[in-house]
Amino acid sequence: MRAVDIIIKTRDKEELSKQEIDYLIKNFTSGDIPDYQMSAWAMAVLLNGMTDQEITDLTLAMAASGDRLDLSEFGGRVVDKHSTGGVGDKTTLVVAPVVAACGLPVGKMSGRGLGFSGGTIDKLESIPGFKTDLSTEEFISQLREHGIVLTGQSVDLAPADGKLYALRDVTGTVQSIPLIASSVMSKKIASGADAIALDVKVGRGAFMKDLEQARDLAEVMVSIGKLSGRRVIAVLSQMDQPLGVAVGNALELKEAIEMLNGVGPEDFHAHCIDLSAYMLILGGEAADLETGRKMAQAAIDNGTALLKFKELIEVQHGDVGVIDHPETLPVAPLIYQIEAETSGWVKVVDAQEVGESSIEIGAGRARKGDVIDLAVGIMVRVKIGDYVEAGETLFDVHVSDRSSFDTVFQKLKGAVELSDEPVEPPPYFWDVIGLDEKNPV
Amino acid sequence: MRAVDIIIKTRDKEELSKQEIDYLIKNFTSGDIPDYQMSAWAMAVLLNGMTDQEITDLTLAMAASGDRLDLSEFGGRVVDKHSTGGVGDKTTLVVAPVVAACGLPVGKMSGRGLGFSGGTIDKLESIPGFKTDLSTEEFISQLREHGIVLTGQSVDLAPADGKLYALRDVTGTVQSIPLIASSVMSKKIASGADAIALDVKVGRGAFMKDLEQARDLAEVMVSIGKLSGRRVIAVLSQMDQPLGVAVGNALELKEAIEMLNGVGPEDFHAHCIDLSAYMLILGGEAADLETGRKMAQAAIDNGTALLKFKELIEVQHGDVGVIDHPETLPVAPLIYQIEAETSGWVKVVDAQEVGESSIEIGAGRARKGDVIDLAVGIMVRVKIGDYVEAGETLFDVHVSDRSSFDTVFQKLKGAVELSDEPVEPPPYFWDVIGLDEKNPV
Repeated sequence: MRAVDIIIKTRDKEELSKQEIDYLIKNFTSGDIPDYQMSAWAMAVLLNGMTDQEITDLTLAMAASGDRLDLSEFGGRVVDKHSTGGVGDKTTLVVAPVVAACGLPVGKMSGRGLGFSGGTIDKLESIPGFKTDLSTEEFISQLREHGIVLTGQSVDLAPADGKLYALRDVTGTVQSIPLIASSVMSKKIASGADAIALDVKVGRGAFMKDLEQARDLAEVMVSIGKLSGRRVIAVLSQMDQPLGVAVGNALELKEAIEMLNGVGPEDFHAHCIDLSAYMLILGGEAADLETGRKMAQAAIDNGTALLKFKELIEVQHGDVGVIDHPETLPVAPLIYQIEAETSGWVKVVDAQEVGESSIEIGAGRARKGDVIDLAVGIMVRVKIGDYVEAGETLFDVHVSDRSSFDTVFQKLKGAVELSDEPVEPPPYFWDVIGLDEKNPV
Repeated sequence: MRAVDIIIKTRDKEELSKQEIDYLIKNFTSGDIPDYQMSAWAMAVLLNGMTDQEITDLTLAMAASGDRLDLSEFGGRVVDKHSTGGVGDKTTLVVAPVVAACGLPVGKMSGRGLGFSGGTIDKLESIPGFKTDLSTEEFISQLREHGIVLTGQSVDLAPADGKLYALRDVTGTVQSIPLIASSVMSKKIASGADAIALDVKVGRGAFMKDLEQARDLAEVMVSIGKLSGRRVIAVLSQMDQPLGVAVGNALELKEAIEMLNGVGPEDFHAHCIDLSAYMLILGGEAADLETGRKMAQAAIDNGTALLKFKELIEVQHGDVGVIDHPETLPVAPLIYQIEAETSGWVKVVDAQEVGESSIEIGAGRARKGDVIDLAVGIMVRVKIGDYVEAGETLFDVHVSDRSSFDTVFQKLKGAVELSDEPVEPPPYFWDVIGLDEKNPV
């Protein structure tokens, strides 16, 4: 077998066999297939596409390229969750304890933030002492004993994906649905869960700006899941404006704790309840969406979800005091307001501009390895469809110094657009993919 | 400017500016743009195409990447010639002295053979002592004094093309008309001629198997010529069967000498006369094809073409004795016949099979740097449309030993197919591109 012949097949829109894809990924990972062949192949994939079977084979080959978690002892009940990334998306911090409180084991390896979307691990590190580098053994024993784990990617999950992603980043081959889908799913499959709820964000603050593209991506990921024997659903959720109010690590953690206490923004609440419900369906705990929603709401109302979160913090060596005293979380020294100059209905709250502003004030990373400030962030006080009066607060900006506020002032002011006419708020979700006879609904 | 943005533009079918193409080629040549970016770009070009303006800019950028011959002192009269490569194609050995004898300076840098098509330089090296590594100074002074030069590529012509070609070879990006056209034309433009006759071969023994593809390539190369201020025509010529009779270096040289003596196969004769005529038109010596043909035939008939070839050999330190005594050229010790087993009309003489057989017996190179045997080769005794009787000779195979004949016996036998019905011989040429008002016809 020769790499050039595999490239030529993809170039000529011929389907690759599983053996050919395995050969490609194995030898690329080992360094025997050079980057210049792999990048030509990636461009051919981007322009010609791949069949669902090829994408699945690619996903499985990448999943097999490194360590894999064996969660078979949990009998297929472990539910994982993945968001394609958005602004203010602290959902995992709520749904993991909610679902675990309902009796399903939730074991999740999360990433750090990069670009305008934040990362769960950074948010968790706002809790003093919280350990995010669990070993595989610690992961499994904690999942067994406590039914909940939220940790960083300490093992070498899908290294082929990491290597390919770095190459795609510099060769114009990121924006390929087969490559994005296999990248996401290879890590999910390597991390062992049999059931995966995908949250595909769509809009200004998401990687996918366009609903049709997002739908394609969701369908491909669900299809990979089915072809590889996993239970997968994908929700298409609104990310034109930030989710909830808080954007920034400690601020988002605080908002998540409030939500577990039953208090919080309506959009974020609806998002958490629905995602929890889908996870409960996938894990076989709820028969339908309505039942799932009720179970999730009950776990919040009866306090078991908050208790589960406390348990998580405690077992991962974090300071549980933050639950009852969130004021002990890192706090920025300065808060500035940005106010509406005129009155009107809110037409736009540009999530990308808010996300980029949060990077500029130090809450996120422009590049891997950048140091972030856990305390700083932006509280987004308006939602699309709200009526605001001139002088009303649009944003509270939590910063470490005045100059850092000055750098984002114009950008944030421009992120909100008002209309003279009433504006219809967008739906929280556009659709859900994969909730059919193949899933235990 | 960033390479990744240029890749993305080509990926998205946006036209690159001259500045972007110059940046790409300059930094690829210097090594500042890595192979993995260039190969992704090449794949995007292969799948999305390029505009004529982009192809021209690419050609000029590659031509400017190394040494360039300055032939301005010849007032635009130097005519170059390029064949895309075929089997038995010894045309340059005839047309260069014919056209030079008609008064036009012919200065040509040729390549060595690779794959199933032979190279002019190898054929010339059958002449004992013939020097093929002239310096630029020697090239120009010889062209000035003798009006004819045939040498190897001793200067560093279009190194960007060499580097890109090596990369294309291993990344499935050879078969791209914009990339093939710019590769050919960059070397032609760097070698200084203002007028270029292109011989685009089509058929089993050519790089282009298909007439429409060959026409596209010819049109693109003619267009590059026009956009870069050169006079260019391209003939589309038949290469389903070998050209003439001889395939192999000394054998082809002998056939060329015979042709300059007015004796030789009809197809090869017609090919030489027409190509010479087109070169005379391009160089302003002939007003039309008929005049050009007559001038070319006269140069053969009156012996001035043969004298010019003698002059070329002499000035490049070759043994001119080979002209009057071609039997002093390298001769293979053994000649075997392959005979027709049945009678019938010749339907196929597969030029690729013949070319590959010539490599196997040592007349050509499978890989760069392979050593070749100048004496060995194949005399093709039949043409499509001929009637052959069972027992008639199809091929004389000139080899150094019996075992080397045995390896090609079956392949050569299979290269000829007979029919029970009469077969129409194919035309020598399919078309000529670029012979219009822009050229001085």
